Amino acid sequence: MNKKMNILMFSGEYDKALAALLLANTARELDVEVTMFFAFWGLFLIRDPEKATLEDKSVYEKMFGMVTPKGPEELPLSRMNMAGLGKQMLLDMMEEDKTPSLTDFLNGAKKKGVKFYGCKLSVEIMGFKEDELLSEVEIITAKEYLADALASDMQLFI
Amino acid sequence: MNKKMNILMFSGEYDKALAALLLANTARELDVEVTMFFAFWGLFLIRDPEKATLEDKSVYEKMFGMVTPKGPEELPLSRMNMAGLGKQMLLDMMEEDKTPSLTDFLNGAKKKGVKFYGCKLSVEIMGFKEDELLSEVEIITAKEYLADALASDMQLFI
Amino acid sequence: MNKKMNILMFSGEYDKALAALLLANTARELDVEVTMFFAFWGLFLIRDPEKATLEDKSVYEKMFGMVTPKGPEELPLSRMNMAGLGKQMLLDMMEEDKTPSLTDFLNGAKKKGVKFYGCKLSVEIMGFKEDELLSEVEIITAKEYLADALASDMQLFI
Repeated sequence: MNKKMNILMFSGEYDKALAALLLANTARELDVEVTMFFAFWGLFLIRDPEKATLEDKSVYEKMFGMVTPKGPEELPLSRMNMAGLGKQMLLDMMEEDKTPSLTDFLNGAKKKGVKFYGCKLSVEIMGFKEDELLSEVEIITAKEYLADALASDMQLFI
Repeated sequence: MNKKMNILMFSGEYDKALAALLLANTARELDVEVTMFFAFWGLFLIRDPEKATLEDKSVYEKMFGMVTPKGPEELPLSRMNMAGLGKQMLLDMMEEDKTPSLTDFLNGAKKKGVKFYGCKLSVEIMGFKEDELLSEVEIITAKEYLADALASDMQLFI
Repeated sequence: MNKKMNILMFSGEYDKALAALLLANTARELDVEVTMFFAFWGLFLIRDPEKATLEDKSVYEKMFGMVTPKGPEELPLSRMNMAGLGKQMLLDMMEEDKTPSLTDFLNGAKKKGVKFYGCKLSVEIMGFKEDELLSEVEIITAKEYLADALASDMQLFI
């Protein structure tokens, strides 16, 4: 299929990230071109857990960087408290069914050639340094995201 | 209109389900073809309240099936606690205005020929049996969903 | 670019409204036509803070109007409690980076010619009067929204 899908990853939650990456991986298997634009809380998903830094940050940025999720496995569920369902329960159920973890899906997406973009404004507001993100991530502006999204056959805001 | 709309129903909340089904029904009135793909929490909306079973399920799957919403009327609001607004208050306001309930919209969508798909992987992880879902639901893979979505004029992630 | 973007603004949260308006403003800078359809909680964003009324409303509608956010600056964060991050902290970080506020983005969108639509059914259920909304807002039905969205190159549900 000579098609293109664009995902704006706004949410920083485990289940929504799982859905987004599952779609991205599946689309690549169909030879669909995929770009993911990570903005706001979505940036947590592409933080490199090994590379947090405190250098050259304001007090707020330091605090923010420390208290927020560092990489995929630290993301919370979007419905954490619903009916007592915890993230561990979901993970256990996924393991029972031999479903890959979020990190597996993220690595799959990298390997399959999903293009990762980070939102310039979000990165600046949250005080992240480009070095703190996965090396596959390229920082672009909202204008560049929109041009890409408008040239796609399908756009999702997740 | 010779058009097609595709909704990925990810959320399992009353207000979001209302929005999605209202769009689906309205689109059918415009002769737009509509497919809804229920994944993750969205599956709660298409559980048949009469047909829950415990057979052939792991401990987690049994617990999960029991503590989560069984069908449309048990779905919570996405903003339950905001400013003290409760679901009952919304329902009362809807009744004052003679707005149909979620179940009415769901039945309308069935009657109007909205196509209902359930996500194979989500069904497996959550341990639902195909029999526990509405009889109108067909289980498909993420790949089949994507092929359908990419052939649509409009895709929403709700 | 001779393109058109349509945003269905369902959420009534500060961060999601910021994302939506930022996209709307940026799209206008690219000469993309933009329509925003405000439904459900999204209506809070286009209430005119100066114009709340209690006239001709049911008890529920009066209560609802009083306890819910009146205009952009009263919107809560979608992840209020996440890791202790408060709205004030986000606002301070935005100010450090000289990012415009939500009200600035809203005024920018008006000036740049983003078309504002309010959902007729939502307005009725919530009991808002057309006078209580920004003067730029035109009330339309879900059918009119869909016709507009289906004629767009990109649709987002936020």
